[in-house]
Amino acid sequence: ASLVSRLPESSPTLFEAKRKLNLTFEAIAKELGRDEVAVAAIFYGQAQASPEDIKKLSEVLNIPHEKLEAQIPPIPDRGRTLDMPPKDPLIYRLFEVVQNYGYAYKGVLNEKFGDGIMSAISFSTKVEKETDEKGDWAVITLRGKW
Amino acid sequence: ASLVSRLPESSPTLFEAKRKLNLTFEAIAKELGRDEVAVAAIFYGQAQASPEDIKKLSEVLNIPHEKLEAQIPPIPDRGRTLDMPPKDPLIYRLFEVVQNYGYAYKGVLNEKFGDGIMSAISFSTKVEKETDEKGDWAVITLRGKW
Amino acid sequence: ASLVSRLPESSPTLFEAKRKLNLTFEAIAKELGRDEVAVAAIFYGQAQASPEDIKKLSEVLNIPHEKLEAQIPPIPDRGRTLDMPPKDPLIYRLFEVVQNYGYAYKGVLNEKFGDGIMSAISFSTKVEKETDEKGDWAVITLRGKW
Amino acid sequence: ASLVSRLPESSPTLFEAKRKLNLTFEAIAKELGRDEVAVAAIFYGQAQASPEDIKKLSEVLNIPHEKLEAQIPPIPDRGRTLDMPPKDPLIYRLFEVVQNYGYAYKGVLNEKFGDGIMSAISFSTKVEKETDEKGDWAVITLRGKW
Amino acid sequence: ASLVSRLPESSPTLFEAKRKLNLTFEAIAKELGRDEVAVAAIFYGQAQASPEDIKKLSEVLNIPHEKLEAQIPPIPDRGRTLDMPPKDPLIYRLFEVVQNYGYAYKGVLNEKFGDGIMSAISFSTKVEKETDEKGDWAVITLRGKW
Amino acid sequence: ASLVSRLPESSPTLFEAKRKLNLTFEAIAKELGRDEVAVAAIFYGQAQASPEDIKKLSEVLNIPHEKLEAQIPPIPDRGRTLDMPPKDPLIYRLFEVVQNYGYAYKGVLNEKFGDGIMSAISFSTKVEKETDEKGDWAVITLRGKW
Amino acid sequence: ASLVSRLPESSPTLFEAKRKLNLTFEAIAKELGRDEVAVAAIFYGQAQASPEDIKKLSEVLNIPHEKLEAQIPPIPDRGRTLDMPPKDPLIYRLFEVVQNYGYAYKGVLNEKFGDGIMSAISFSTKVEKETDEKGDWAVITLRGKW
Amino acid sequence: ASLVSRLPESSPTLFEAKRKLNLTFEAIAKELGRDEVAVAAIFYGQAQASPEDIKKLSEVLNIPHEKLEAQIPPIPDRGRTLDMPPKDPLIYRLFEVVQNYGYAYKGVLNEKFGDGIMSAISFSTKVEKETDEKGDWAVITLRGKW
Amino acid sequence: ASLVSRLPESSPTLFEAKRKLNLTFEAIAKELGRDEVAVAAIFYGQAQASPEDIKKLSEVLNIPHEKLEAQIPPIPDRGRTLDMPPKDPLIYRLFEVVQNYGYAYKGVLNEKFGDGIMSAISFSTKVEKETDEKGDWAVITLRGKW
Amino acid sequence: ASLVSRLPESSPTLFEAKRKLNLTFEAIAKELGRDEVAVAAIFYGQAQASPEDIKKLSEVLNIPHEKLEAQIPPIPDRGRTLDMPPKDPLIYRLFEVVQNYGYAYKGVLNEKFGDGIMSAISFSTKVEKETDEKGDWAVITLRGKW
Repeated sequence: ASLVSRLPESSPTLFEAKRKLNLTFEAIAKELGRDEVAVAAIFYGQAQASPEDIKKLSEVLNIPHEKLEAQIPPIPDRGRTLDMPPKDPLIYRLFEVVQNYGYAYKGVLNEKFGDGIMSAISFSTKVEKETDEKGDWAVITLRGKW
Repeated sequence: ASLVSRLPESSPTLFEAKRKLNLTFEAIAKELGRDEVAVAAIFYGQAQASPEDIKKLSEVLNIPHEKLEAQIPPIPDRGRTLDMPPKDPLIYRLFEVVQNYGYAYKGVLNEKFGDGIMSAISFSTKVEKETDEKGDWAVITLRGKW
Repeated sequence: ASLVSRLPESSPTLFEAKRKLNLTFEAIAKELGRDEVAVAAIFYGQAQASPEDIKKLSEVLNIPHEKLEAQIPPIPDRGRTLDMPPKDPLIYRLFEVVQNYGYAYKGVLNEKFGDGIMSAISFSTKVEKETDEKGDWAVITLRGKW
Repeated sequence: ASLVSRLPESSPTLFEAKRKLNLTFEAIAKELGRDEVAVAAIFYGQAQASPEDIKKLSEVLNIPHEKLEAQIPPIPDRGRTLDMPPKDPLIYRLFEVVQNYGYAYKGVLNEKFGDGIMSAISFSTKVEKETDEKGDWAVITLRGKW
Repeated sequence: ASLVSRLPESSPTLFEAKRKLNLTFEAIAKELGRDEVAVAAIFYGQAQASPEDIKKLSEVLNIPHEKLEAQIPPIPDRGRTLDMPPKDPLIYRLFEVVQNYGYAYKGVLNEKFGDGIMSAISFSTKVEKETDEKGDWAVITLRGKW
Repeated sequence: ASLVSRLPESSPTLFEAKRKLNLTFEAIAKELGRDEVAVAAIFYGQAQASPEDIKKLSEVLNIPHEKLEAQIPPIPDRGRTLDMPPKDPLIYRLFEVVQNYGYAYKGVLNEKFGDGIMSAISFSTKVEKETDEKGDWAVITLRGKW
Repeated sequence: ASLVSRLPESSPTLFEAKRKLNLTFEAIAKELGRDEVAVAAIFYGQAQASPEDIKKLSEVLNIPHEKLEAQIPPIPDRGRTLDMPPKDPLIYRLFEVVQNYGYAYKGVLNEKFGDGIMSAISFSTKVEKETDEKGDWAVITLRGKW
Repeated sequence: ASLVSRLPESSPTLFEAKRKLNLTFEAIAKELGRDEVAVAAIFYGQAQASPEDIKKLSEVLNIPHEKLEAQIPPIPDRGRTLDMPPKDPLIYRLFEVVQNYGYAYKGVLNEKFGDGIMSAISFSTKVEKETDEKGDWAVITLRGKW
Repeated sequence: ASLVSRLPESSPTLFEAKRKLNLTFEAIAKELGRDEVAVAAIFYGQAQASPEDIKKLSEVLNIPHEKLEAQIPPIPDRGRTLDMPPKDPLIYRLFEVVQNYGYAYKGVLNEKFGDGIMSAISFSTKVEKETDEKGDWAVITLRGKW
Repeated sequence: ASLVSRLPESSPTLFEAKRKLNLTFEAIAKELGRDEVAVAAIFYGQAQASPEDIKKLSEVLNIPHEKLEAQIPPIPDRGRTLDMPPKDPLIYRLFEVVQNYGYAYKGVLNEKFGDGIMSAISFSTKVEKETDEKGDWAVITLRGKW
């Protein structure tokens, strides 16, 4: 099924407002004081928006506060956006990294931390752009509590 | 099936030697001049070992060079280690990050770079340990050519 | 597909009323004299509501009795809420417990009870919150007839 | 494939010794000072055995220490025992509980704790037997850090 | 998807009429002179209703004959109600019987009849209730041409 | 994989002895005082053999008692024989009955017994042969505690 | 999902007209000068209707030509009607023939024709009814270019 | 897994003898008085060999009678040769016929025979080669009792 | 589900205009100065349309520019058109080529280029028609950066 | 499972000889007068080797002719090398091309050829290397009879 049919009601509201105002996630993230990936995740219904986030989003995006509050689910129903394996080539590449390096990460992490796990909840992530003589590089950082 | 039955012949050879000598991936990586995740990936048959890598591995791990050369496949048959979704909890957490943040990454990456893709081939990755008052944090960095 | 499209008609009715009145499952459960997990399960169409449950729900939640009676299916069509493996991280953790400890539970249960099975029907379950110096703990108890 | 082919080398060693000495998980657990479910999980290669656990296991089960140390994998490769959905009826019942009550647990847990997750790692679990006039009851308790 | 979306148009018509008149399958079956399981199967679009069945159903259930004739598909498109493995616990139990005893049935049937097959088409089935000192028992009988 | 590779060690032992002695399940069942389907299920490792069953099986089938005791798993690991959907045509027909009549059984059972479930554990099953002018009929009866 | 939701817009138009006029595929096929299976395949959107087919169909079935031309897709999107394995028992039987005899057909075909393949495109198929003292027989013939 | 690992012990015995003697299925079928597809099916363990078939096969193929009798399973465990969808292109083409024409066959068969089913058990099938100016044609005929 | 329900809003708009004007992909591609496969991919929402592409498409196809701009997603959500394995026979043939020749391509490519990968992003593809005495040939060329 | 376990016996024989003699597919292909992709496909058991191919292969690779003839299966059991979706990144890229461009190819091909299909059997394919100022390009050509 199409992506929209899996997303909460708030998603088209947010994306439409963002497009009309021609705002980037980066700009919105600055207003909210959050990482831009987290803001994008709120747009897709994958991260929780705090009451303050909702308030700021309604201001920045010019959406009636009540409407946004009613449409954003109080508890995000995570994991709805993708089927696995992902079909979109960009997202597949990230999945491929896990597929190819999964046990290598596990080996190195266990060596550094002992038996345990990196939390995907007490967790933050960011995307940066680096440019050198070879061109542009996307740098994604995952940081999770052990 | 068990993990070993999916790995190339070189994997048990390498792991056994590493255990006997009580070496870490970090120590081996320093000898090879490569990232420790890449070295672990060589152990699991997921990354290509150059002739120099093989030579150094045979020295550091005290494995006859010829044996190692014969056992390491000339072209890695990547993607063999995992079934998806992964069952091991640690690796599942990485998969979960892709599942939950996949479209958020795509949204932010496209905003920064335009339509395109982060290469998983012209790509490097590393694992670091940070410690603060809240405890230990695992930091995984993915860096890929756009 | 989205969660709502899998639920009976009564689910949005119940959740909407609960949200408007700002009631917790705990508060509703006290009125009904049932475990709060069972009440939540009724909201999701996974447990049977007795005629009394329906009567009390309509009173507590201020929903016309007839409407609720018509919308709650007389026989719950259980198992509709989830695809397996679950994608939501919280529910996945419960699934992971079964995946990792399944045979351990079987081994210990058989040792204590002989060959047999724990009923998931003559069964009750509850969720409690404990707090100690390490923080909060969720305690889930399953109790089933052997 | 059969269960044994998925387990680490240590599993048949441990089970055979246990059967010969006619010991219960409960008895072994007392010697190790651990929950019996955790001990059973060590038998199935799903939980990590500490050096002390290995030492005591070798004593209690009369297995040469060196052999046990070599056979127990230093990092458990968790999640190997089951395919999902599980086919064994006893384990399926546990899975069914997650399938039927998953969102009910999520709803109640979020109400009690806010958005978040119950850890399946900082986690303990136990199995108890209760008997009343209706017969025997299996009681399984999951306790995880929020 | 929900069950209703998989059923023919006639299903909600029949169920609604049945509920309004508060009739059991047993009562309807007596009027039609058919097994009650077959009648329930007609309700779910899984068995063929003869012209007489349709006539009697329209009388018993007070549904315009023309409407029913138009809504009941002339050739049932069987197998639409379930995904496999079934998620509803009651139906899963029947499935579990096939899963656990499948080869046992095959062994015994072949011993009694030689190589061959029990028809699921020249076939009848019924459900009975037995009560003894241990409580109620459900008895399901399958009878198929060899 | 082939069926044998999924069965416990005792299965080929039992089948080989049965073939050599040219005994039917019926004959063996009479000696054991159990239903022949249950006996066949023991052969396939899907039902538990009591100590007496093992003793009688060793006598009837002329197998050393110790050998049989060692090979029959103390707790059957049920559900190993089939992949679902089953490929063998005979077993598929039984599966098809569940697929086609599942909700019809559920509807009729709930009408007779209320909300609940037919146990597949407190359960017995038998196979009979009936012959009339149309030929042979296989009759399978499932009887489970509600 | 239901069958209709997978079919092109022309399917309900054609079936409705056929039912109203009470025409068989055989009768329609005669008018079109095509095999009745091919005609039925056009009804289900699985075979291409030539301009002449469309003209004759509109005449025979009394459907405005323009409407039919607009609704029949110019290029059939084949393979939409079934999920595999098929759940409808009649279609499953055909599938079962392929499942059981697949390699036998391959063996015999290769013996007769050498390495190669039977085209499913330069292909025709028909259904015939034969009656003898044992009753009716369905005869399906597949004829494909090697 | 490879095909051989799924076949009964008799399969390699039969194929090896056939290859050594350079016999075709057609030649063997003539000796046995059976269709060549049925003979090929016996080679793959998918059809039952009668005692006479076994006797003749041992003669024609020069295999000790006792050996063949021991290796051919008394009851064929059908459906073992293929995973579905089939990967071999030739067999896939047959599968594709069912996928594309399934409902067309059902429609035409129901029109000719009424509601019912074509048996895949009281069933015969044959392969013929036709040659015309366009080249060779493979003709496969399925004939089953209604 | 049907193909249309997976495509972006722009797809039916584009196809309808193309049909009304009776234009080929080839003709449209010439106007846009792009490969016709890329143009077809834009129609199916699988390739990105540049602002110029959108402008020209609106001119060539006589679609209001604003409407097209609003309907074409700014970032294509690729991979939505197919389930895998593909059911449409034409597309299955391409899939079959990958299935059968996958490792052969890998072997030859690695021999020519060393370890690495052919980009599916820095990539172009075209379809050509060749005719010789044997008839028509479809020639598909893939050209990707190593 | 590992790749080798899915290949015919001849595969390791051929690869080992090739490695010892340090020959490329290109060199071997020249000797055989065939495309190098076809030769690689013979190595993987996915294409048929003619008697001449076998003779030349035994000469070029210095393998006893009889051994090779016995190990190469007379009829290739195609499609054994890959699970789908492929996990190896290089092969996945080819799969991704089909996934993303499938319907675009179908649209363009139908426009050029009418309804029909590109044969994957009367088919040839080749791999070429092109180099320009941007670097190396892999060019794969598929050519199939319509």
